[in-house]
Amino acid sequence: MSILMNAPRMYETLKREKLDAVVATTPENVMYTSGFWAMSQWIRRGPQAYVLTPAQGRGEQAVIASTGTLDLLADQDVPVEDVRRYGFFAIESDALCVDHDARDQRVSRLLERADPGDAVGALVSAIRDRGLDTATIGVDEIGILPHYLDQLREALPKATIRRAADVFRHVRAVKTPEEIRRLRRSAQVAEMSIDAALAVARVGATERDLANAFHGKTIMEGGMPVLGVICTGPRSALSSGQPTERRLESGDVIRFDVGGRVEHYRADISRIAVLGEASAKVRTYHRAIRAGLLHACEIIRPGMRTADLFNTVVDIVRKNGLPHYQRNHVGHGIGLDGYDAPNLTPGSNEVFEEGMVICCETPYYEMGFAGLQVEDMLCVGRHGVDSLMRTSSELRLV
Amino acid sequence: MSILMNAPRMYETLKREKLDAVVATTPENVMYTSGFWAMSQWIRRGPQAYVLTPAQGRGEQAVIASTGTLDLLADQDVPVEDVRRYGFFAIESDALCVDHDARDQRVSRLLERADPGDAVGALVSAIRDRGLDTATIGVDEIGILPHYLDQLREALPKATIRRAADVFRHVRAVKTPEEIRRLRRSAQVAEMSIDAALAVARVGATERDLANAFHGKTIMEGGMPVLGVICTGPRSALSSGQPTERRLESGDVIRFDVGGRVEHYRADISRIAVLGEASAKVRTYHRAIRAGLLHACEIIRPGMRTADLFNTVVDIVRKNGLPHYQRNHVGHGIGLDGYDAPNLTPGSNEVFEEGMVICCETPYYEMGFAGLQVEDMLCVGRHGVDSLMRTSSELRLV
Repeated sequence: MSILMNAPRMYETLKREKLDAVVATTPENVMYTSGFWAMSQWIRRGPQAYVLTPAQGRGEQAVIASTGTLDLLADQDVPVEDVRRYGFFAIESDALCVDHDARDQRVSRLLERADPGDAVGALVSAIRDRGLDTATIGVDEIGILPHYLDQLREALPKATIRRAADVFRHVRAVKTPEEIRRLRRSAQVAEMSIDAALAVARVGATERDLANAFHGKTIMEGGMPVLGVICTGPRSALSSGQPTERRLESGDVIRFDVGGRVEHYRADISRIAVLGEASAKVRTYHRAIRAGLLHACEIIRPGMRTADLFNTVVDIVRKNGLPHYQRNHVGHGIGLDGYDAPNLTPGSNEVFEEGMVICCETPYYEMGFAGLQVEDMLCVGRHGVDSLMRTSSELRLV
Repeated sequence: MSILMNAPRMYETLKREKLDAVVATTPENVMYTSGFWAMSQWIRRGPQAYVLTPAQGRGEQAVIASTGTLDLLADQDVPVEDVRRYGFFAIESDALCVDHDARDQRVSRLLERADPGDAVGALVSAIRDRGLDTATIGVDEIGILPHYLDQLREALPKATIRRAADVFRHVRAVKTPEEIRRLRRSAQVAEMSIDAALAVARVGATERDLANAFHGKTIMEGGMPVLGVICTGPRSALSSGQPTERRLESGDVIRFDVGGRVEHYRADISRIAVLGEASAKVRTYHRAIRAGLLHACEIIRPGMRTADLFNTVVDIVRKNGLPHYQRNHVGHGIGLDGYDAPNLTPGSNEVFEEGMVICCETPYYEMGFAGLQVEDMLCVGRHGVDSLMRTSSELRLV
């Protein structure tokens, strides 16, 4: 199990925020802090898994997991030692089996721990055992069910409980090398999947045909489908349009705003293709939005304000053939979530830092015409960006 | 757009709970009450879309949608008339286009509405316009971000705001005919996907090969992958095990606990296959757990307590060859979520009702041996269950 968490940044942030510990509750933050992929919380809202991360010197981490997910935790070789289970779940053991492996042995040990009955009970025991029951604890407020948060406050009347989703958002913004490796792979799977979709693009093929080829390739490469905005012709103008039975016609724009999840990390990229000949308007506008993206790739540096990038990029698009260009953002961070920090918006106070991975994009949606969009995944390096892409954002004619 | 919501049950529940309105905030409840699939809230936690449903006679429904999702809403032909947008998002319109279709016209009309700035502002305006600002309003507490809920309370100081996730859970438990049609299709896509996976099962094939075939088929049938517990040999004992590069050996158990999302509705089914010859232990235990499921299919009736079913099913499994059988539940409802009401648990106070769709299951996990499981999707009819399955739960030898 590789470590995902940027530990120095986490400890520094806890110190600055005067937090004695934080509790991860969303699937992304649980994965980030412990490497534990607790399936049920990824596919539903409600199942509870937590990770307690004390500030530096305040104790070891603890994972709170339902008994039914202990085998998954052991199979994933989650490196956090202190695992607190909760809830009844029957797992038997073959008494005649002579060589239970390390995974089964870990499950057996974990099953021996007492069951406090529910997730909050298990969390409270981990907090008490670290002497943190009078401490200031940040709780990621997005993944914990509200009545469980009430229960936590009642069980720890002397603790100060603060919302901490923003703490995790801040820490996760600067990626570790392992995260960057995964994001690069995820981006490349998305690119390969676009190629697979374009391989079936011909007059009469449907948006659904393209989407099937896209998602099918993502799966063959070990990913899971997430984002699949694949629309053609005038439908390409639908910013979040979903594939239908519409059939491709000659001259149609094909817009991809796509990306799955690979090793739990998201991709979000965009490319435009045209079936046959592209109109002058498509070419002009595409060149304009691409000029914005290319300029961003040239100028992004650690220390630059993301709001300044926004203004510059919009300006470049306007000056290069799309004078009426308007936009709410020109990108966002990406990681375990599709939108990590920073926001590349006009109102953001965020600043680029080395190690951030961002999606930079300049979409343009015009009803009755088409949608055009280019979006690259970029890693912010010391002296400029390192693109995670292997394919060009040029207009592709198929 | 077909109506999903069981409107009579919703109105009856609001009346009984003395609620003047409810606000849907999770993706499932937004879809359920309005038919609106607001993509961003399905693939991330944070993006806000709401549906306000007043009690009968208290006004029409309203949808609160970010400006960037209006085109999606119009493309889906969402039947709720009153749509309140929020946030800046640039959507242009081709002035030279002479035949904007109904979708584009609706988007244009919606863009003309004022932007109150954020989701809560839009929700508050819809509440005020219905004279509900002094009313008792149930808010689905799971999908709304906590600081937005604070904002809502502050904006409506005279209203009584109550948590209402349970209200939605209760209403959604009894399915409409359209929901049952979708669930049947979803179940069948899962069955076809198991067949596709078993078609590649042979000595040396990996769990990943089977999973790729499984998810690939789900996609080809128009579904999206969600649950893919596909493990072999001793790994089949991992209750939520994920596919690896482990290679199939002769005599291996192959356990599927699987199901995607088709037309937004989940499947969750389980089947066991054996590569080559099944051992006597596998055959005996499989027969025992299957006896429990088959008995459940015979006895479930409207009016029966789900806790009684639990006790009976566990008893049947014990008497049929698995005397030490223990379990936390023998199933659960299914719908837009993988676990809808009711819970088939020993402690449940719920009762089967006509129109419920349930997953009935009797899994058995034994480390060092294997995992065995059968799970069918069943619709509760007036005089017994109508199975949504086309395949038998018998042990399959491949």
